[in-house]
Amino acid sequence: MTTTRPDRAIGVLGERALIERIHRRTGTLPDWVQLGIGDDAAVLAAERNASTVVTSDALVEHVHFRRDWSPMTAVGHKALAVNLSDLAAMGASPRACLLSLALPDDLPLQAFDDLVTGITDLAASARAPLVGGNISRSPGPLVVDVTAIGAVHARRVMTRAGGRPGDLLYVSGSIGAAAAGLSWLESGVDRESLDEASRQCVARFEWPTPRVRLGRVAAHSRAVTACIDLSDGLAEAVRQLAEASRTGARLSASALPIPIGARRRAESLGRDVETTALAGGEDYELLFAVARKRRRAFLGAASRCSDVPVTLIGELTEGKDLTLDRGTRLDSLPSGFRHF
Amino acid sequence: MTTTRPDRAIGVLGERALIERIHRRTGTLPDWVQLGIGDDAAVLAAERNASTVVTSDALVEHVHFRRDWSPMTAVGHKALAVNLSDLAAMGASPRACLLSLALPDDLPLQAFDDLVTGITDLAASARAPLVGGNISRSPGPLVVDVTAIGAVHARRVMTRAGGRPGDLLYVSGSIGAAAAGLSWLESGVDRESLDEASRQCVARFEWPTPRVRLGRVAAHSRAVTACIDLSDGLAEAVRQLAEASRTGARLSASALPIPIGARRRAESLGRDVETTALAGGEDYELLFAVARKRRRAFLGAASRCSDVPVTLIGELTEGKDLTLDRGTRLDSLPSGFRHF
Repeated sequence: MTTTRPDRAIGVLGERALIERIHRRTGTLPDWVQLGIGDDAAVLAAERNASTVVTSDALVEHVHFRRDWSPMTAVGHKALAVNLSDLAAMGASPRACLLSLALPDDLPLQAFDDLVTGITDLAASARAPLVGGNISRSPGPLVVDVTAIGAVHARRVMTRAGGRPGDLLYVSGSIGAAAAGLSWLESGVDRESLDEASRQCVARFEWPTPRVRLGRVAAHSRAVTACIDLSDGLAEAVRQLAEASRTGARLSASALPIPIGARRRAESLGRDVETTALAGGEDYELLFAVARKRRRAFLGAASRCSDVPVTLIGELTEGKDLTLDRGTRLDSLPSGFRHF
Repeated sequence: MTTTRPDRAIGVLGERALIERIHRRTGTLPDWVQLGIGDDAAVLAAERNASTVVTSDALVEHVHFRRDWSPMTAVGHKALAVNLSDLAAMGASPRACLLSLALPDDLPLQAFDDLVTGITDLAASARAPLVGGNISRSPGPLVVDVTAIGAVHARRVMTRAGGRPGDLLYVSGSIGAAAAGLSWLESGVDRESLDEASRQCVARFEWPTPRVRLGRVAAHSRAVTACIDLSDGLAEAVRQLAEASRTGARLSASALPIPIGARRRAESLGRDVETTALAGGEDYELLFAVARKRRRAFLGAASRCSDVPVTLIGELTEGKDLTLDRGTRLDSLPSGFRHF
């Protein structure tokens, strides 16, 4: 990352000049974008029988990120990734995104460009081009608010509410790494001094991978009865899915896919490994409830996403209890992570 | 506005409790909302042959509003209204909106409730229900970011770019009132002491009416070659429409619909009335370029919106010049208002 004019802040440029800088980074638009940046609103072509899926989520400086901790490309990436993760949880395909920025006057132009690059790079790879938005001044923190728009066949929508007692619970990827990464950043450690497993945790916090393809193929398998993404941690996701489905849930502690970096970090802080991983937010994995007799269809579909495994971690139950089976005893599920 | 617990700030409540307060205010959902607040994303049913129109715009405290100037219901109303105005400029019908809030910890709960009420009241009357969004803490200003989603038949979309030399320029309603209203608020005057015409200017600043129905019927008339809304003032709107259409434009100063309150305010400040009204932002009216031979169709359609008149103010021209015809002389069009 080189800064040719390190003293140049965005305050010297007007909204139109900044929008022009964004526009130059958006690249080729897919054919469903009838109208992108530059009019009063963006226009996306109709897709036959597809419902429109919309979600918005903001990253606020000093609340969700710090400029002195993370590169701005990562902040931009994450601002879009958390929204694509919400689309993934519905089984939707991304189609476009909007970016709403509130910018402090002293934000360096290079930071602005990096932020936008982080968004447009992910937007290009996810085929969710930036088609509009707005820019305001901020007398306080940098606020990066993204809206993602997707499409899904009406009968393929996955919600949180369709789970039934006996359904199997699967989680994608691994849990607890992002929270371990955040705890490393909070500790003020020089990241160059971290070992590989710990660095991966920091990367999981800064560069989450939305499970878009997995969400889509899982929705197509017709095996998933309910789905939610893990923005606030696995425990909170299980709680919300079970609440919406009016079931209880039982997880198996020994089955939880907790990577070595997250295990070591919890142990070094004297914390319980499983509780820490369950409560840790920002994993942006997917939690699925799967009808027991459709299990093979689900696993077959999931295996088509060879980059991310799914792990059986428990099941939905009758009643309302949320429990963690530790082999020798049954604990209550710990409370989740709260951004706010 | 009564505050039963004046000392209660939103900091004491969590995100879920605040979302629940919003959810209670959303009312009955139209049948196109398959899934509203409460899942990872909202889902809107497909509409046959309709393109999806999306736009987002934010109001930032101390930049766009001040809590000690305007009631929070007005701030909420305006946050949605400016987005509906963008949909109107495309000829789209509103279908839903998302709300992204960054909230200072000391925001009184009553202010939060009033803000939400301002949004949900307009959302209900515009049939654009609040279907999702997110809430974050803000270590600085209150940020109210709204995304509006609409639908329009693909062949009815109005853009800024279709104008041709000779097309007639019409503007809805009146111009300059909102800027006059803002200048009253900035002056610190006690609004109770204002006369009726001046109060109307303040109301135009605080409670803009998005011209949704007019935009829709105008788009259906097939007479409009280009359209834009007046967020940054008429002069800036003419500039952007002409630039996108690769034309010039000539406006007639004597034709401009400037209400008496705006005239008096400009005169009392020793400013030129027409220049002030042309440069004044936040009118949220619509500017139309109309094919000369389709003029009757346009006026017939516009007359179906009896609440808002349209006024012929000039025409698009060959070349690039943007001029204001003052009868005795031809001036350059003044520069527009800039939020940023």
